Amino acid sequence: MEESDPMTSPVPEPGALTIDPSGAMHGRTGGYEKRLGDMSGVYRDERAFAAAVAGHGADHVVYRVEEHRSGDGPGALIIGTSTLLPGRYGDEFAVTRGHLHARADRAELYHCLSGRGVLLMEALDGRSRAVALEPGAAVHVPGHWVHRSVNTGDEPFVTLFCYPADAGQDYALIAEAGGMARLVVDDGAGGWTTRPNPDHTGYRKEAA
Amino acid sequence: MEESDPMTSPVPEPGALTIDPSGAMHGRTGGYEKRLGDMSGVYRDERAFAAAVAGHGADHVVYRVEEHRSGDGPGALIIGTSTLLPGRYGDEFAVTRGHLHARADRAELYHCLSGRGVLLMEALDGRSRAVALEPGAAVHVPGHWVHRSVNTGDEPFVTLFCYPADAGQDYALIAEAGGMARLVVDDGAGGWTTRPNPDHTGYRKEAA
Repeated sequence: MEESDPMTSPVPEPGALTIDPSGAMHGRTGGYEKRLGDMSGVYRDERAFAAAVAGHGADHVVYRVEEHRSGDGPGALIIGTSTLLPGRYGDEFAVTRGHLHARADRAELYHCLSGRGVLLMEALDGRSRAVALEPGAAVHVPGHWVHRSVNTGDEPFVTLFCYPADAGQDYALIAEAGGMARLVVDDGAGGWTTRPNPDHTGYRKEAA
Repeated sequence: MEESDPMTSPVPEPGALTIDPSGAMHGRTGGYEKRLGDMSGVYRDERAFAAAVAGHGADHVVYRVEEHRSGDGPGALIIGTSTLLPGRYGDEFAVTRGHLHARADRAELYHCLSGRGVLLMEALDGRSRAVALEPGAAVHVPGHWVHRSVNTGDEPFVTLFCYPADAGQDYALIAEAGGMARLVVDDGAGGWTTRPNPDHTGYRKEAA
């Protein structure tokens, strides 16, 4: 495997970070926010989504990422926090867009810092897994799993993540498949469950 | 970069983990313990070390690692906890052996879950950095930094770590150099400071 050469690319300084359960990360090098208007087409209930846009405005922030990067050579990592605000669109809970890594074999850690949620994961062979997260729980997502966060609670759902800097994100895969194969929905009894997404047409196989 | 092939190597299941501030990790796939007898030659004060062995026995556990691995292809990660018990050897605080990654450019995350300590890091160009950690603080250790944990408190010092599965550890580098360039010692006022290690003879440069 290719190695970066510290003689030609200076070795960066360590990153000293402070990670708050709220998702605020002191020492971050970057980040981004996603707004309601960025989530068009993600939820099945278009009427519920349109009502949310009418009520909150398309600029309403629905999740944000803060991250620390240090170099981009092989072996480099991206460390950060994901903060997904609570929400409901019909019976679906608020989700991140979700992705497969562009380099599909790159793994990722999600470690819950606050709130309650689910990590929804789907392999291209048809397996689907939903792991509940609360503070102290974590998921090791191996490569080749499509994954998204779901907020099943009433507070922001915050996770610490760590993944290889060369992973990249394939966001189109889910949209092209009509959404993920399963939806995380209200179970009518104060909790959550999953049900099949009737719009899901299967993932393109070359993504593996 | 080489990619693993999910058609020939089945995609592993996600790892659902519960990570306690004590360092106990439910869902782990492995781990190890280091005992006082494994730490021979690590501390400068040989008399203080011999007294600790006489008092506690060579089998006394000084730190333990619990970890979760999922595959070992490119892009795979190792996620775990490091629990370093408190201790003093002369004016030196208890440390892990420390290492440079065998693939030196592999980075690592350390996120403090409980206790108080320092991550001591040294680059082969002579830079030395000591970052204090308490719960909520973290360090992003870029590749090419020798690193070790130091417990500067009275309780176990527990960190969550995440690093590429192909990193490996070069433990000999520090021993061959007569120890790390700096020591983390009692400052005589209830805190810690660093001072040069007079036995340090420099790191072999090909380790970069």
